[in-house]
Amino acid sequence: MQTTQAEVFETIASDVVLSSSLWVNIALAGFSILLFLAMGRRLRTARARLIWVTAMLVPLVSISSYAGLVSGLTVGVIQMPPGHPLAGQEVLSPWGRYLTWTLSTPMILLALGLLADADRASLFTAITMDIAMCVTGLAAALITSSYLLRWVFFGISCAFFLVVLYVLLVEWPADAEAAGTGEIFGTLRALTVVLWLGYPVLWALGVEGFAVLDVAITSWGYSGLDILAKYVFAFLLLRWVAANEGTVAESRRTVSGATPADD
Amino acid sequence: MQTTQAEVFETIASDVVLSSSLWVNIALAGFSILLFLAMGRRLRTARARLIWVTAMLVPLVSISSYAGLVSGLTVGVIQMPPGHPLAGQEVLSPWGRYLTWTLSTPMILLALGLLADADRASLFTAITMDIAMCVTGLAAALITSSYLLRWVFFGISCAFFLVVLYVLLVEWPADAEAAGTGEIFGTLRALTVVLWLGYPVLWALGVEGFAVLDVAITSWGYSGLDILAKYVFAFLLLRWVAANEGTVAESRRTVSGATPADD
Amino acid sequence: MQTTQAEVFETIASDVVLSSSLWVNIALAGFSILLFLAMGRRLRTARARLIWVTAMLVPLVSISSYAGLVSGLTVGVIQMPPGHPLAGQEVLSPWGRYLTWTLSTPMILLALGLLADADRASLFTAITMDIAMCVTGLAAALITSSYLLRWVFFGISCAFFLVVLYVLLVEWPADAEAAGTGEIFGTLRALTVVLWLGYPVLWALGVEGFAVLDVAITSWGYSGLDILAKYVFAFLLLRWVAANEGTVAESRRTVSGATPADD
Repeated sequence: MQTTQAEVFETIASDVVLSSSLWVNIALAGFSILLFLAMGRRLRTARARLIWVTAMLVPLVSISSYAGLVSGLTVGVIQMPPGHPLAGQEVLSPWGRYLTWTLSTPMILLALGLLADADRASLFTAITMDIAMCVTGLAAALITSSYLLRWVFFGISCAFFLVVLYVLLVEWPADAEAAGTGEIFGTLRALTVVLWLGYPVLWALGVEGFAVLDVAITSWGYSGLDILAKYVFAFLLLRWVAANEGTVAESRRTVSGATPADD
Repeated sequence: MQTTQAEVFETIASDVVLSSSLWVNIALAGFSILLFLAMGRRLRTARARLIWVTAMLVPLVSISSYAGLVSGLTVGVIQMPPGHPLAGQEVLSPWGRYLTWTLSTPMILLALGLLADADRASLFTAITMDIAMCVTGLAAALITSSYLLRWVFFGISCAFFLVVLYVLLVEWPADAEAAGTGEIFGTLRALTVVLWLGYPVLWALGVEGFAVLDVAITSWGYSGLDILAKYVFAFLLLRWVAANEGTVAESRRTVSGATPADD
Repeated sequence: MQTTQAEVFETIASDVVLSSSLWVNIALAGFSILLFLAMGRRLRTARARLIWVTAMLVPLVSISSYAGLVSGLTVGVIQMPPGHPLAGQEVLSPWGRYLTWTLSTPMILLALGLLADADRASLFTAITMDIAMCVTGLAAALITSSYLLRWVFFGISCAFFLVVLYVLLVEWPADAEAAGTGEIFGTLRALTVVLWLGYPVLWALGVEGFAVLDVAITSWGYSGLDILAKYVFAFLLLRWVAANEGTVAESRRTVSGATPADD
């Protein structure tokens, strides 16, 4: 439990598979930042620019997150509780991933909600439940006292995820249809729903859960999901917004909320 | 200072009075979540649904918070500074309580503010001061270097609380009266003000302060206050909103803020 | 690495230069709170009151932050990585400064944005990039595994700072001109830009970076910047708002966001 940050840094650096799963994301996040800067620089309307900044924040948070993992600052060494397949062993726990998802995933939902021209109540629901999902997921990863309670927190986190899925699948499609963004919203929603389902599956199969996959493979899994759910997602979103700024600007609502008539 | 999470978990589990104070809240929060889901599912207007989600988040944060305490993840063992009644002794500190109040109490104030149809400036005031109250309360509990500074932070936290009380007692009653929600707001405000005053009193009398009450009794005190100030509060609120959705929907303001005429 | 909070508290208390750099800010923040309370108590319009509360939060966060530093709660002892001028030595790291800037600097930008009557997209940009700047600055200070990665995070933090500068220097001046607050905005913007540039310079010259300046002098540097960029800034802002409440109240936008016409 007394492993220093420098020792974790060395452990990561000496594992080529693990460290490459981090560095590839730093490179791709950096490339995405430059690309997205170029793609959005001609946007002029307030609503399109808000979506642009929201999309830019996804790789910006991501590059900071992966640099934190590489440095060992946000990676711990935890001892798994009795009952866990690796019980008693010391395991690398990249808790920084779960912490920074608390900051990046709300941006993805905010971008989707703005695209769908969603009302404030459903935006508030999606974002608060998403943050609760990430924080309880972080708790699940950090519990070392009880194997059962790791899964209890996993279950709580999944329950919050179900609310997010409900908003994405039931509430926002109709909003997007009415706003004239139904097609691109449908594509991005499908991408998000399918990929986000991969995260809890990976948690369950990886070292945090049943430990079917080892640390480096789990890390590659998350890195792959991040590449698709973050950079490819934001690229598709920005490409559409840049080509359809007029549709985005014509919101039924103000940028910020519902008008009385919406209520 | 080197107590592991597993040891804290065992200590809590072996103290029936202490652990029952946590489990009873997990059970009641779980029951509240199911009950509130049923109570709000027929709400249709944006404003009523926003209050519903806000109220739902209270037991959702609470169940996560109490599961964190039971696991030992958010409970530390601290050594009280010279001057404290338990100076030099190692004491269980459930710092997760203060941390999660940072997330749950703003929801209570947001629900009250939406019910009163408060303007944005007073909502911003109430919520930021409330968060500052919780964070400085957390600092008060975690200081082990100076008995005096524990009380200095307690005093700072109480000063923030006074601002919250000012908004609740002076600013919002008139708003609620104008919005036609004066009666229910009056009930919920009285409940909130009286119960919230109990928290600093309990802090002062419990192990964090003068240590008149032991750890388990202090925990039961907080748990009892949480039951009334969180689940009973949210139940009364939701019951009224479900029966009076029309009144809630007719806001003088938009869901999100003041119109220029309000300024 | 195992220094207790009590030992850090003693170390700070026994260093007159260091501890006076903290206490002078506690005194000035306390005085500012009382002064600002008096200055703003006659404000009546929602927009002016929102700026008042935002400005009040600056010394309120600051007094809490400095009390945390004095107690040792938010000061750590870190061992600098190879390559750093103090490599291998244990150095006091007041990480609480960087953490609380995450809370206080968004208030400064919010006040400036409200004064300039900025649209929601640029407010969102300035505040999210500012928070990212502070969080990555905190990471830069806490990395002990690699000298290079300390500077990588310093660079990331500076990149976020550039976005904040862009909003302050390019986007908001025109908004402020249109809102009739061009003159005072120009003064406060110049004050903010010049002083905020001092923070990364101090980080680079202080113990976190090249270690040209020692811990106590670095601390005095930050304390001096805080006095000017926080209390003097907020004083000038509030004095103007109190004398020109009518101009502030006449917003082209609602308190909270852009109207559809702005998009």
